[in-house]
Amino acid sequence: MTVQMDPAALNAFMWEEFPQVAAQFEVERTAPMEADVRLKVTEQHLRPGGTVSGPSMFALVDLAMYAVTLAMIGPVALAVTTNCSIDFMRKPEAGRDLIGTARLLKLGKTLAVGDVLVRNVGADPVLARASLTYAIPPRR
Amino acid sequence: MTVQMDPAALNAFMWEEFPQVAAQFEVERTAPMEADVRLKVTEQHLRPGGTVSGPSMFALVDLAMYAVTLAMIGPVALAVTTNCSIDFMRKPEAGRDLIGTARLLKLGKTLAVGDVLVRNVGADPVLARASLTYAIPPRR
Amino acid sequence: MTVQMDPAALNAFMWEEFPQVAAQFEVERTAPMEADVRLKVTEQHLRPGGTVSGPSMFALVDLAMYAVTLAMIGPVALAVTTNCSIDFMRKPEAGRDLIGTARLLKLGKTLAVGDVLVRNVGADPVLARASLTYAIPPRR
Amino acid sequence: MTVQMDPAALNAFMWEEFPQVAAQFEVERTAPMEADVRLKVTEQHLRPGGTVSGPSMFALVDLAMYAVTLAMIGPVALAVTTNCSIDFMRKPEAGRDLIGTARLLKLGKTLAVGDVLVRNVGADPVLARASLTYAIPPRR
Repeated sequence: MTVQMDPAALNAFMWEEFPQVAAQFEVERTAPMEADVRLKVTEQHLRPGGTVSGPSMFALVDLAMYAVTLAMIGPVALAVTTNCSIDFMRKPEAGRDLIGTARLLKLGKTLAVGDVLVRNVGADPVLARASLTYAIPPRR
Repeated sequence: MTVQMDPAALNAFMWEEFPQVAAQFEVERTAPMEADVRLKVTEQHLRPGGTVSGPSMFALVDLAMYAVTLAMIGPVALAVTTNCSIDFMRKPEAGRDLIGTARLLKLGKTLAVGDVLVRNVGADPVLARASLTYAIPPRR
Repeated sequence: MTVQMDPAALNAFMWEEFPQVAAQFEVERTAPMEADVRLKVTEQHLRPGGTVSGPSMFALVDLAMYAVTLAMIGPVALAVTTNCSIDFMRKPEAGRDLIGTARLLKLGKTLAVGDVLVRNVGADPVLARASLTYAIPPRR
Repeated sequence: MTVQMDPAALNAFMWEEFPQVAAQFEVERTAPMEADVRLKVTEQHLRPGGTVSGPSMFALVDLAMYAVTLAMIGPVALAVTTNCSIDFMRKPEAGRDLIGTARLLKLGKTLAVGDVLVRNVGADPVLARASLTYAIPPRR
């Protein structure tokens, strides 16, 4: 399986399709069935005490799964999440970016299934893990 | 089981603890083991095409579960989501508020488990469903 | 939406397609988008202490979701579970049958989504809850 | 983190505590925060067509998570699954054993969180993936 889109192509696609989202994220790495995406943590992602909010971590795992799917199938604006199961395990450190590492476990014609581990940049402990299913629209 | 906090008390608590979040939501109803919470949809929640984003729906189910838990145990700022499994089933209508209807299925000393159905205000079809587990901190 | 198969039709279908499974279960009720299925608890379902095992409860929610799907679309032997998220909340009572109450939240052309509550027969507390997604094979 | 129980110790413990289950499974490998468990597929695990049933795969991921938890904390008969989210992705091959590879992502005082990949013995494609949470009883 060859990678169809590298980080530069994915970031350009995100800016075109989802400008308000693209400003918060950066695809940093793609590899066969894998991608790393960074959440650039700012004030809007924080909860009192400085920790990153649950919805912000959800947004990261959702985007990381989207990125790895597009990396493998090419630009498809309409793929949609149908299911996500997420476990929150440790509190993120205040004011530090997050990295979501996504891997695809199945890339079918209509469904893609994968999981994502979330860590603080440069730190080993897993803060959250998620599994996601994406519905891929029929290709013309 | 008696309700410890009514919608007014919950909304006041949210404004005090999570002001940036409280502006987006309103607790509309509490009942034993139940609560309804509204997401006041604005530009920030939308995706191209006018549909409400996945992270915004996640934020709604997370807050609805938090609201029903607080309604039953009283104000506890530190309860945290440990797990959420969410299914996205139908696209929300553009520019219409969402209602999350939460019910608690178990309220233990350390864990609360419940589920949430998400609909457009005044419409019957379920757009998303989620089940969530909350860890309740030990009471002093 | 009309019910296509009543409990008698569903039980007969199960006996024909899955005889080893059918002996353990009984569909007791169907209604539009709903079904009740009983697990007839025997030695094989128990763990030390007399409680029903997790895999037995999984088997019940899986079958209840299958039953409610078939009830609405008619006999399709090949529908398969693609995802199940299950929360175990309370221990079942020793030596008492279980009832799984399934409801369909979405019945699309290729995917069905629903949830199931598990209780001891005649008792109110919810022992487990599950949400499931089924892939429906294309109809010829 | 040191491994407290090796495969021999885990298999002996299972035979003592859950004899009816132990006959179906074999712990094959333990490593820090990891374990491999084999499901010895027999007639009772099959569905028509020869594929392994969903409940049998659930039983495998549940036991693999239990094994990796015990491997790290030592013999605790009472740990219970509180949540499992499982994705079924590919059909198992007829009449071939399954291997569940579990890794612990968090081992707290009261909760353990991990995930499991299921494959046919000696084959690479992932048939199912699951994430599980275990409640660990307070130690005396």
